[in-house]
Amino acid sequence: MRQEIIKLNASVLSAASVVGYLEHGGPIGQCFDFYDDKKNGGDRFGQATFEQAESEMQRIALNCAMGKCGIKQDQLSAMFAGDLLNQCTSSAYGLLDFDVPYFGIYGACSTMAEGMLLSGMLVTHGVFDTCAAVASSHNCTAERQYRTPLEYGGQRTPTAQWTVTGAGAFLIGRQDDALVRLVAGMPGIALEKGVTDTNNMGAAMAPAAADTLVRFFRAGQTLPQDYDVIVTGDLGYEGGAILKDLLRAEGYDMGVRYQDCGEIIFERQTQDTHSGGSGCGCSAVVMASYFLPKLLRGEIKKMIFMGTGAMMSPTSIQQGLGIPGIAHLLVLECPQNIMKEDG
Amino acid sequence: MRQEIIKLNASVLSAASVVGYLEHGGPIGQCFDFYDDKKNGGDRFGQATFEQAESEMQRIALNCAMGKCGIKQDQLSAMFAGDLLNQCTSSAYGLLDFDVPYFGIYGACSTMAEGMLLSGMLVTHGVFDTCAAVASSHNCTAERQYRTPLEYGGQRTPTAQWTVTGAGAFLIGRQDDALVRLVAGMPGIALEKGVTDTNNMGAAMAPAAADTLVRFFRAGQTLPQDYDVIVTGDLGYEGGAILKDLLRAEGYDMGVRYQDCGEIIFERQTQDTHSGGSGCGCSAVVMASYFLPKLLRGEIKKMIFMGTGAMMSPTSIQQGLGIPGIAHLLVLECPQNIMKEDG
Repeated sequence: MRQEIIKLNASVLSAASVVGYLEHGGPIGQCFDFYDDKKNGGDRFGQATFEQAESEMQRIALNCAMGKCGIKQDQLSAMFAGDLLNQCTSSAYGLLDFDVPYFGIYGACSTMAEGMLLSGMLVTHGVFDTCAAVASSHNCTAERQYRTPLEYGGQRTPTAQWTVTGAGAFLIGRQDDALVRLVAGMPGIALEKGVTDTNNMGAAMAPAAADTLVRFFRAGQTLPQDYDVIVTGDLGYEGGAILKDLLRAEGYDMGVRYQDCGEIIFERQTQDTHSGGSGCGCSAVVMASYFLPKLLRGEIKKMIFMGTGAMMSPTSIQQGLGIPGIAHLLVLECPQNIMKEDG
Repeated sequence: MRQEIIKLNASVLSAASVVGYLEHGGPIGQCFDFYDDKKNGGDRFGQATFEQAESEMQRIALNCAMGKCGIKQDQLSAMFAGDLLNQCTSSAYGLLDFDVPYFGIYGACSTMAEGMLLSGMLVTHGVFDTCAAVASSHNCTAERQYRTPLEYGGQRTPTAQWTVTGAGAFLIGRQDDALVRLVAGMPGIALEKGVTDTNNMGAAMAPAAADTLVRFFRAGQTLPQDYDVIVTGDLGYEGGAILKDLLRAEGYDMGVRYQDCGEIIFERQTQDTHSGGSGCGCSAVVMASYFLPKLLRGEIKKMIFMGTGAMMSPTSIQQGLGIPGIAHLLVLECPQNIMKEDG
């Protein structure tokens, strides 16, 4: 069973993104819906603490997504939400204002894909009419939780990634005439291949990404060429290169089709973000505001989105354990554009 | 939509529990499948750290549940797992050995119910054949993460609960002739009613439990009398009393039908556990090894199980926020026994 692709028949009704000022200043900064422009003490979104700012970002992202497609709170059947904070508090507090059933999820940086996959499966089978999938990360909450106090200013290694300040929300529903469809999914299997360096999470996640992708290609007998774009969540430059090598060893050449949200969101040289962006918010905002519009405009007709997560904690690393990686895969299509082309 | 009960048509194929020595020494200690009997430095399950011990407990619980019903790894479609540790590492590491798609979930102490509900919904609609729902907590990992170093030995308040050392695993599948069926579910809505005292989590969770239960009774037009037992996860003595009051105010008298896993697992007076047990493992092991056998033996024919969770973190509490509560509800039935009685 687990080698089978899960068929989905659900629509992306809308999506929204909220980012910090660094992300807004990046190469795709103009795509995002909201950002906090106060550079001095910024990225707080009017909140007293960075943790509460991250919650606020989730609140804004979901409200914005609901506004875009005119879905009201009482039309939402369920929310799937997660983040990187201990006990996933950005989500629990951020979505408290919504009187909607809440499913907390944790897939580290794969959380957006996990939430979209769960939403897609349950909407496909009519369990829920409309679901929200929400995920976030905040550089300032992640740095002080995972690494060092913000003021410490330690030197970062070349393979280190930069946690994105961002929250994304997707509304998944059944509306058959929606422009973007979720057509298939493949859940990830957690893998730990001995990488213990939290400054190289790309290397820790790449084997899990390769595993999911190879299982997906084999199960559906498809090839990278069958998709316009193959996007990973946040493998970054290091992990992305490893994934391409691992795929090539299995006989799949992704070539220029392959892109990574962590590589897209920052300007590598000028923004000093080393191996690229990471965090639940990275793939959430890049998918919501960069790739989804491309699907809507017909520039992409069929794409693979694979959220990638590194599920360690500071405690597990201090205890000498490796980093478990995971990657959940989704296929998004723009059928109306395909139909137009055919006609 | 969200006020509707979710109809389920899935079976509990088996369940298993692993506990620590305090739980084994409690009133229902003989029910559990495994325990660690080494009182000196015990509850380590042969592992170097308590965190790794908690992972090991999840591994044992799932293996035991699979063994009980003869399900092999390649027959498992998916695993839903969570725990209380930062970044849910007990689950991520504990289930690494299983080559099975992994969905990380976080519902604090409601995690077992959340995993069973997600499993039940996806099995009902044939997305997955057989799912595992796994959850754990460990007193020694929780104490040092949430409260104080183990050696500190601080005085506990009367309303404080004792985190259960335990892991439970449920296998949910489609087998129509199974003795215990999941027939309905009602997902919880996160609520925060101003309780900021982490030594009174029962009070923080009780409003969410009341909300789910009242929505459930109203939606299905049923009464507490329609169920043999109504069980909450871990409201403890304090939260349980508040829940009964809240329900009475809404016109529902649960009377002696109401029980709480946190009250059942420890002997209140002699085990010095104050307001009762808590933690993801509490409802997981009591449901797996105390209530499930009662359903199998026909002593209970129809019951409500409601997992209850307090989704704060030490950081959110230090920042002065309240405790968000949540409660996911399931209805379990033993149809064969009902048939026998009818015949």
